[in-house]
Order: sequence, then structure tokens, then C-alpha cells
Amino acid sequence: MKLDFTLICSRCERETDTGGTPNVCTECGAPLLAVYPLEEIAKDFRPESLEGRRWDMWRYREVMPLAADEEPVSLGEGGTPLLSLPASAKTAGVRELLVKEEGLNPTYSFKARGMSAAVTRAVAGGAKGFVAPSAGNAADALSAYGSRAGVPVRVYMPKDTPPLVIAECRALGAQVELIDGVISDCGVKAREFAKQTGYFDVSTLREPYRVEGKKTMGYEIAEQLGWSLPDAIIYPTGGGTGIIGMWKAFAEMETLGWLEPGKRPRMYVVQSSGCAPMVRAWESGAETAEPWKDPETIAWGLRVPGAIGDFLILRAVRESGGAAVAVSDEDLLAAADELLHHGVAACPEGGATLAALYRLRADGHIGPDDKVICFNTGAWIKYVE
Amino acid sequence: MKLDFTLICSRCERETDTGGTPNVCTECGAPLLAVYPLEEIAKDFRPESLEGRRWDMWRYREVMPLAADEEPVSLGEGGTPLLSLPASAKTAGVRELLVKEEGLNPTYSFKARGMSAAVTRAVAGGAKGFVAPSAGNAADALSAYGSRAGVPVRVYMPKDTPPLVIAECRALGAQVELIDGVISDCGVKAREFAKQTGYFDVSTLREPYRVEGKKTMGYEIAEQLGWSLPDAIIYPTGGGTGIIGMWKAFAEMETLGWLEPGKRPRMYVVQSSGCAPMVRAWESGAETAEPWKDPETIAWGLRVPGAIGDFLILRAVRESGGAAVAVSDEDLLAAADELLHHGVAACPEGGATLAALYRLRADGHIGPDDKVICFNTGAWIKYVE
Repeated sequence: MKLDFTLICSRCERETDTGGTPNVCTECGAPLLAVYPLEEIAKDFRPESLEGRRWDMWRYREVMPLAADEEPVSLGEGGTPLLSLPASAKTAGVRELLVKEEGLNPTYSFKARGMSAAVTRAVAGGAKGFVAPSAGNAADALSAYGSRAGVPVRVYMPKDTPPLVIAECRALGAQVELIDGVISDCGVKAREFAKQTGYFDVSTLREPYRVEGKKTMGYEIAEQLGWSLPDAIIYPTGGGTGIIGMWKAFAEMETLGWLEPGKRPRMYVVQSSGCAPMVRAWESGAETAEPWKDPETIAWGLRVPGAIGDFLILRAVRESGGAAVAVSDEDLLAAADELLHHGVAACPEGGATLAALYRLRADGHIGPDDKVICFNTGAWIKYVE
Repeated sequence: MKLDFTLICSRCERETDTGGTPNVCTECGAPLLAVYPLEEIAKDFRPESLEGRRWDMWRYREVMPLAADEEPVSLGEGGTPLLSLPASAKTAGVRELLVKEEGLNPTYSFKARGMSAAVTRAVAGGAKGFVAPSAGNAADALSAYGSRAGVPVRVYMPKDTPPLVIAECRALGAQVELIDGVISDCGVKAREFAKQTGYFDVSTLREPYRVEGKKTMGYEIAEQLGWSLPDAIIYPTGGGTGIIGMWKAFAEMETLGWLEPGKRPRMYVVQSSGCAPMVRAWESGAETAEPWKDPETIAWGLRVPGAIGDFLILRAVRESGGAAVAVSDEDLLAAADELLHHGVAACPEGGATLAALYRLRADGHIGPDDKVICFNTGAWIKYVE
């Protein structure tokens, strides 16, 4: 199968072969990123090329890790709504507020995008099983795509993961292992299991393609805004694949000639004050983040004490002129409630982005003329105890 | 506000004014249907007109109950995936099997489409509150769209409705009343409350626009299949708005010149053997259905003992050369499980359509060369007890 991209290490820039099931850079252990021959692709691939195509993330297939004529392992991920919230925009005092409603993906979270891309390539590369640690939303997504591909899945989750998510993984046919610990503890178990069995480890940024799925959020908002971008993006950040992916997408679209260069949004990372390693690193000016001890937050997607892509997240925030901000569980829940009362069934992490908007506006990071996109990354219903 | 359609009674053909908030025909009590000047619309509205439009059901706005330049009350409903299931197609012995994944709508069911259209028109017509009876999926959909429009909502549901659905309605800001009975008992309460308070009654086919929202499922599958239709559609039927709506959509598209006339699919209605009023009516050759006594099924969307649009459902089934079939709870749950193991998080009603496919194929209603669409109408997760 001929793949028209290369895999380059995000730290040492060493190239890794796309054959089989690559993980991280074998030289330095950093995440690998897919690099496409964009100047070549731009000759035939234009916004008009998208007309009449499927409404999911694979409409951007020329800049996705997919061979010509290859069918992805898909459940219709992407193509999510971008909803205007005029009342909250007024309260916040910004020109326009849009919510990207990622809860309408398969298994009701943004994780579907990454898993569709990762499973597609890994199955083509010969994977016979999948394993991943998860705070919850990655687990049922992987369970779904593994089943879609007919490949067994094992997921490791903290034992206090909401029962509905655990039940959904099992209903989708996955083996579920519950761990007395947080996602990093689950990660250790997942890697052990992968080593023992040969199952492919789909942990965040330990394989190159989840970020390619996530980057389609960037392509979509550009397309939904008529090939323009907002002034600011506020994104709840655990492993950070979305921030890294969208920042990559904006650079790609500039090279393709689809976006005017130099007009990228400021990227704002939101975490919970009970687990804010990126915020601490950003405030101290560090290039990487120290792991957070005893992480505690009701927004379990944010209960991620450390991220292998920390330097890439911090780089995107700095290059964009953004910031990293922590909000309390109380504030993020109140903001989620506000979204619910406007009809958007937001998860706590989605609420965190609205809470962060209020904070960033008050602090002057975001101004009255800004057009802002907040991300709701999952469905309220999955969080019911 | 100028509306370019008329409302015609589906039984006596009397016209009703589109102003205010019309319910049923004031002359004979039957459902009203919107009739558009299609020959006129066809002059400017073509499949190519859809290029670059939003990915939701309002992309078909020329044939929707919407004034020029009016913004609908929308949460991004529609634009759902159409997924190929080759393994189940092989098991069933049909040429192709596709699943329309309606669980990826706002509030995770097909009901979002109807509520978006109904709430849009009723708010424009002056409604100050909404009330509806529901087996579950209509209730949280109405709760979301009411909140989106800033209009209060009251829903009446059977007291054994799954707790997650009840919780979601409340989280979205609705008043929930639980009734010791089935949906028809809830309907009595809803109509009483509407009479007392002036809240607008959004019951199935007691207002003209939910069916307009549902018909977009027909437009979408035609667009997704490159302006062609399958040989057979299998649809789980409670109130029947989807069957009536899609049948209407196919007729409209023929008039618009978008579909070749005379190539409509056979429409198959599925119910549970514990509540099968349409199946009984179809088998006896009746034009309307007697209410089902003591309805009992785990698929609560099918626990609908009678339907005001029964004669329209039966007409669509007969005109199309289809059939009505009942499946047991055991069979529909096994089929839902099969869908889950292919990665599609189907609800019991969705499972019923696959169970019906096996039955209809065995009975010879559906043949080996048929291309079949089954509808998954909601998300598995909402049904967890």
C-alpha cells in the first residue's frame, strides 16, 4: 500500500518508515507526526474538491493518512455542528461565540476522530489487537472502532470511571480492566499488556495517527467559517492531541493556500485547577510539564497528570499568542449548566471552555471584538453517575 | 413572515392557515401536511444548490417550513452517517446493507429532526411554552430545542422511562412529569396541560412540522446515495412520522426532478410483538389500526399503542409494496447486540430493524439482490437502566 506522506519525529526530526505499526521515534522517544507533500497535493486539492463528498472527516482524505482508494475504518466521525451562542457571547462580552459540538461524534466524544485514523492505519499495518489507557472517552471510542474493524480491544481505565462508559465499552465487545489509579497508571498496564501480547498500543501520541484524526477539527471549523478562522480557540486539554492537531492543520491549510497566512487564532488551553500541569508549565515559562501529583477533578477527561506531547502543546500556545488557564470544578460545572440551558448537552470539559472564556475576557486575554470558538468535547449523558 | 407553502389536511384536504400555531385539521381532526410549490421551487433549487451549505437538515431549506432568510432553531440535527455493514449483509443474504445512524443527532436520537422543525415554526407563531408526551426520545429532544429557543418545556413520560433520559430532560431545564401509564396516557395529560396553560402541544402529528423534520431522512439518504434510493427501507415504527415523512420526501423529490419516478423503495414497518398495532392492521387489511391493549416491550420507542397517523403509515406501506412485521424483544436485542459488535451503538429499536431484515429475507419479502437501509433511531447509552 503506497502512502504519500512521511513520518518525522517532532523532536529530533528523524524519519520513521510508515510500514507496519510505528509508535514513537525509536531514536528519541518523541511523538511522530505525518508530513504530507502539500505543494504537490495543492495542485489538485482545493476547497471545491470537497463538493459532494461524504460529511465526515474523511472528506479531507488527501491530507489524511490514507492510501488512494483505501477505505478508512469509519463510523461517520466528524462533520459536527458549529453552534452560535449569542446569549453567552453577550454575557461574556465578545463579538461572537461558537461551540463546536463534538459530543455528536460516534460514541459521543471527540475521541472518535483520533481512533478512526489510528485504527485505520494500524489494521492496514497488521495489528491483531488494540490496547489503550483511557480516562473514559478514548476507551469506548477504541472499543467501537476495534469492533468495526473486527479486531479485539482491551482498555484500562481508572476504577472510578463512570459506569455508563464502562458498560458501553463492554457492550461494544471490548475487554475492560479497571485500575486503582489514574490514566498514567493505566498507561503502564497497557504498555505491559502490549509487550506481552503484541496488541498495538494506541495511547495518545504514542502512535502517529490519532493527532491526524483530531486535526480535522481544524479543517472543519475553517470550512464551516468559509475558509477563515476565529480570533481565539478555547480547548480543554488532557493529552493535548486536539491542540497539536489543529495547530498542524492551520499550518497545512496555509501551505495549501486555503487560508491567508499569519491569521491563525490564539490557542487557549483549559485545565481543571485540580490537575493543571500545562498551566503550571506555561506560567513558569517551562518547555515541558512536570507530572501533576494527586490529580482530582470531576472532569475526568482532564484528569491527565502528564502528557508525552507537552512540549508540542506549550509550543502551539506560545506560537499562537494564547495562554493556559485553570478553572475550578465549581466554575466548569456552572458553565456546563449554562450550556445545557441553551440546549447544548455539554460535558464538564465543555463547560470548562466557557468558564475559561469568562476568565480570559475578564483578564483581558480575550477582547470585545473577538470571535471565539469553545469546544464541547463530549456528551453530558456519559458523565451521569 | 411570508411562508411559501400551504397546510392541507391529510384526510379531508381542507386548507388551514399557516399563521399562529396550527394543530390538526379543525374540520376533521386529521394531521395537516405542508405542501410546497415544487414546480416553482424546482426552477432554482437543484442538487447542485446544496454545495457548500451547512451539513445539517436545513441544507434542504427550500423544501422546509422556513421563510426566506429565517434562521431555524437548530442544534445541528441531521447530516447523520450512512454506514455499510458488509458482514451483516452477508449473513442476511442481501446485496448491500446500510445503517442510517440517527443516534448521532442532538440528544442522540432521530427525534431531534422533528423537534427542530416544530419548535422553529411554533416559536415564530408565538408559542410561549411547549408540552409533549413521550416514550423518552422525544422528551429530551423537545427539552433541548425549547431551551435553545428560550421557551419553557414540560414533558409527560411513563414512570418507567429509563432514568438517564429523565435526568437529561431535567438537566436541559425541562419540567418532567412521570405518569403511571403508557404514552397515550401521557398524551391525555399533555393535552389537559396545554388547554389549561396555553402551552403548545407538540405531540406526534398533532402539529404539522415534526413530519417535515423527519422527511429530511429521505432527502439525506437520496443525497448520500448520489440521488438514488435503496430497494427497501426498514424502519421502527411508533408514531410513524419517519415513514410518513420519508414517503412524502420521495414524492417531493420526484416532482422536483431529483429522482427518477417509479423507483421508490419498499417501506417496511417494524414493531415489537409486545405492541404491534400497525402489524395487526396491515395483516387484516384495515385502513386504520385499533389501539393495542397492555403494550409491553423493552424497546420503549415502540411502546406506542395507537397513532393518529395510522392511515398514513399503512398507506405508505401499501403504496410502496412493503409490509409490517413484528419481532420479539429477544430477537431485537440479539440484533442490537450484533450491531454493537460491529461498532454501531444501536438502541433496541435499531436492533429491531436488523431482526426484521432477517425475518423479511427468510419470508421472501426481501431478496438477494436488494440494497437495504435499516434505521438505528437512537443511542444504546440512553437505554441503560
